[in-house]
Amino acid sequence: MTEPTTAPPLSATPRTSLGRKKDRARTDRADLHDVLDGALICHLGLVLDGHPQVLPTGYGRDGDVLYLHGSTGARSVLAASGEPEVCVAVTLLDGVVYSRTINDHSMNYRSAVIYGRPRAVLDPAEKLHGLRVLSEHLAPGSWEHAREPDAKELAGVAVLALSLAEASVKVRSGPPTDDPAEHGAGAWAGVLPLRTEWGVPEAAPDLADGIPTPPHITDRRNPAG
Amino acid sequence: MTEPTTAPPLSATPRTSLGRKKDRARTDRADLHDVLDGALICHLGLVLDGHPQVLPTGYGRDGDVLYLHGSTGARSVLAASGEPEVCVAVTLLDGVVYSRTINDHSMNYRSAVIYGRPRAVLDPAEKLHGLRVLSEHLAPGSWEHAREPDAKELAGVAVLALSLAEASVKVRSGPPTDDPAEHGAGAWAGVLPLRTEWGVPEAAPDLADGIPTPPHITDRRNPAG
Repeated sequence: MTEPTTAPPLSATPRTSLGRKKDRARTDRADLHDVLDGALICHLGLVLDGHPQVLPTGYGRDGDVLYLHGSTGARSVLAASGEPEVCVAVTLLDGVVYSRTINDHSMNYRSAVIYGRPRAVLDPAEKLHGLRVLSEHLAPGSWEHAREPDAKELAGVAVLALSLAEASVKVRSGPPTDDPAEHGAGAWAGVLPLRTEWGVPEAAPDLADGIPTPPHITDRRNPAG
Repeated sequence: MTEPTTAPPLSATPRTSLGRKKDRARTDRADLHDVLDGALICHLGLVLDGHPQVLPTGYGRDGDVLYLHGSTGARSVLAASGEPEVCVAVTLLDGVVYSRTINDHSMNYRSAVIYGRPRAVLDPAEKLHGLRVLSEHLAPGSWEHAREPDAKELAGVAVLALSLAEASVKVRSGPPTDDPAEHGAGAWAGVLPLRTEWGVPEAAPDLADGIPTPPHITDRRNPAG
């Protein structure tokens, strides 16, 4: 990941200024990068023929550019005329917050929302770069291990590039914060953490004998949420 | 959860008929319920002043009604005039599919998308019921253990109800399916499963002595993805 030497703080446009629970807002660009680097997929929202559409899609980050994979989501964007607006949400759940009252139950989470108009990546060299960024996000190490896309595969896939210029980050962490007046009720209060872990690699049934599971898979670091 | 005796199959409107990877579509309503019951949050998409908006939001299912929590998401829907269209996406990631080629890398997932016009739940009895469904989804057992919402709390929260009439489900599972012509390259192929697990409960720092962690928290079943 190439980082600008001086990362600008997150923008404060009306829609990235939170109307509610303002104490959960983060304005450090590093928080945005942490959320994006910690999750595996995003939810891409756009307006298609006047109707809202949300599509789970793979992505990868390179500095302050988000590359989106040419699956259903990107195809819908490309099918729309011009460079339509999108809203991309990335959410990491960290736990359930149990309070003495139902009303104060909550979740611990880290959430990023990005607004912009992605452009279709058409230049073959940038497209290959974008695919590499996407691949390194989904399956770090695979780009070196598996066969790279050939010209036909490259032509058959769509890649979008979205600037991270307009984005917001929201984080809730820590214990419940219910009113001390509720503490006498005897209910338990605390957090049940949620974690995401890789399981044991399952070789394909048709994998040839003698091909070991490579370290970039056996040693893959667990996702951040 | 109350289930209709004869659950209709999933609808096949143009937008729920998948344009791509049709083999991944499921039409059994039970698959929709499994995805919704297995995840913790949804991503709610809507059009606000002409712009796409995606909001991570809590939900709960009762039969073929989805209740959405009155957090930012629901408030935005309520702030819009009438009963605006929404698109709700729920996604469970089950693993990364490593293929012999970068092009055939994929993810195993279960994904549901619901379209509709949610209505604001205003009747206090249904609102309380909706909150109970939401609470049982986020924190099963808490409704009995913690203090129920009082009249003021009930008035201060928004609950939306969305029919599951128009929905689609997509599932990818199993090993990679790359071309046998690629098998000689020596790359590993298979699946790295992803699982979500509860950690060890963390009592609130201000929890009174002698309040044990209740079984509905210590024995909580892991999420489905």
